[in-house]
Amino acid sequence: MREVRFLLVGLGNLGRRFCEILLAKDDLLRERYGLALRLVGAADSRGVAYDPAGLALAEVARLKAAGDTIANYPIAGNHAWDAPTLVANADAELLLEASPVHLQQGAEPGLTCIRTALRRGMHVVTPNKGPLVAAYRELHDLAAEHGVCLRFDGTVAGGLPAINLGQRDLRGAVVERLETVPNLVTGYVMDLLTEGLSWDESLERARAAGVLEADASWDLEGWDAAAKLTILANAVLGYPARLDEVARTGITALDVDELCAARERGYRYRLLAQAERRPDGSYALSVAPVPLSPDHPLGHLGSKQVGVVFTTDIYGTITAIIEERDPIPSAATMLRDILDIYVGSGELKVTS
Amino acid sequence: MREVRFLLVGLGNLGRRFCEILLAKDDLLRERYGLALRLVGAADSRGVAYDPAGLALAEVARLKAAGDTIANYPIAGNHAWDAPTLVANADAELLLEASPVHLQQGAEPGLTCIRTALRRGMHVVTPNKGPLVAAYRELHDLAAEHGVCLRFDGTVAGGLPAINLGQRDLRGAVVERLETVPNLVTGYVMDLLTEGLSWDESLERARAAGVLEADASWDLEGWDAAAKLTILANAVLGYPARLDEVARTGITALDVDELCAARERGYRYRLLAQAERRPDGSYALSVAPVPLSPDHPLGHLGSKQVGVVFTTDIYGTITAIIEERDPIPSAATMLRDILDIYVGSGELKVTS
Repeated sequence: MREVRFLLVGLGNLGRRFCEILLAKDDLLRERYGLALRLVGAADSRGVAYDPAGLALAEVARLKAAGDTIANYPIAGNHAWDAPTLVANADAELLLEASPVHLQQGAEPGLTCIRTALRRGMHVVTPNKGPLVAAYRELHDLAAEHGVCLRFDGTVAGGLPAINLGQRDLRGAVVERLETVPNLVTGYVMDLLTEGLSWDESLERARAAGVLEADASWDLEGWDAAAKLTILANAVLGYPARLDEVARTGITALDVDELCAARERGYRYRLLAQAERRPDGSYALSVAPVPLSPDHPLGHLGSKQVGVVFTTDIYGTITAIIEERDPIPSAATMLRDILDIYVGSGELKVTS
Repeated sequence: MREVRFLLVGLGNLGRRFCEILLAKDDLLRERYGLALRLVGAADSRGVAYDPAGLALAEVARLKAAGDTIANYPIAGNHAWDAPTLVANADAELLLEASPVHLQQGAEPGLTCIRTALRRGMHVVTPNKGPLVAAYRELHDLAAEHGVCLRFDGTVAGGLPAINLGQRDLRGAVVERLETVPNLVTGYVMDLLTEGLSWDESLERARAAGVLEADASWDLEGWDAAAKLTILANAVLGYPARLDEVARTGITALDVDELCAARERGYRYRLLAQAERRPDGSYALSVAPVPLSPDHPLGHLGSKQVGVVFTTDIYGTITAIIEERDPIPSAATMLRDILDIYVGSGELKVTS
């Protein structure tokens, strides 16, 4: 049995769900892969808990479900440390960085935690877009320099393996065009508007369904889609895109009559993020609401679906779509990334 | 520059196209991955050519385009050797086995070539279903025993990375249901029938388009789809399926009136291969023509598209679809597999 001692920073929706997934999957991971994942440290915005002998996942999940801080974890809880202190001092080989996106505040504390972990020779798995948008190249090079893995499949399009597919299955190809509808909530809201709900009602419904963040402008103004496109461009297209070069139009100025008229013609509006290859090999990046025809590979996306299309020179046109009825697939991307590090590398073998 | 000396067995549609792809991609592979692929031996059904110093891809492609045998390759051509003799004696580290599927004749010569190559410590890449259907477990174990890779992403659904997606991106999950429309020609023919063409006209059109094999029953009676499902079950579901346990119904007994009536209701007939998980963890396997509703993830497949759907416990429902307008993507799967072996393993790094 290979034991992997890991830290979990960020115990919001994704971090807490990950604890629940791990509780349910512990036996399967041991049996199928010979892998025992041991949580030794965890952090939220109010403090940390650290115990080299291991924290109980059920107790972590219970504390957070009750709205409490991890710093109140029995004995191991620590109100004086913060996440970066934990990452700098704990004995572990893997960091899961799942703190909320704070692009406006310099992608912290995620960026510092990831830098520190990579420099200490730890593998890093993160579904947090902020640090990758802010410092893709630096983090990529830091991981290579220290001979460790940096995996971030969960940063784009929820549980869809868009990064993996692009990085691993399109090798040797030239991607002529990348199109993605990576943001769930904008499609959800536009579908409700089409059904006759008002803007206020639609946003309220999205909030109640848990798909709209407190800061609605992040989704509605296309920042989320632009951040995801920036990461895809860097990671899949090999193009060093910056967030501020994405031509970005959100959905808030949309005319509802036009939405409804498009639907009647069989078209479906989605917030489409696109990268179009220029003759010099760079890419033109844009995010805008677009009426997708029924013939478009993403023209039938439902309210709970996101997707990506790669138009390539030698692998045809490849589309991938995910239907997510809850946040479990997004949280499970961390498990996918962990297994890629330990099983994909050949270190652990699959027992079947 | 890392030079990889390889053999290519089978110079039909896929093998010849692969030579053309490699000619076009040689510079990119050297620049992006530091990889130089050198063809040292090739075989067709009439003989071989072998030159340790390398064969010229353009000359191989020219001979085959002219309907000639590789045995007439200048100086290196050899009418006395066959493919297994080449694989048993050539100095190379990689075998591409792209000979035609001959399930009825025991999957030869592919099976012998693959066995021999693995035993000699060569990596093997193959889009040939026959050997994998006939001896999945044996070949898998043989590769593991000799510490080499056996890759076969091209055996299922043309250029769609269905095997890769299932093996690498669903780790840790339970696949409740796998649905795939892996065969292009049956959908193509059913669409033509719906448009009012007769069976004879539809088959003639499919033959002219190069999508129907000489032995039409392989596709039309569902053998091709059943073979692909068998490989997916073994490779992705970890279920040791046999071809003869697939409940198989082809499309030849279909009522054209029913096809047309379904289309008018917005349904689209496709030859659907399914694996449904039983409570004991085994899978029920079937292939049959099914009217897919517009809400089905594969309900809008065009005549040039194939696809796969994985319904999982923790990664939601993931659909992947490819549009192939020519056989290039199917041939390019061999390049994808080669790059997975040398770049995916970390042996070669991506320069960007």
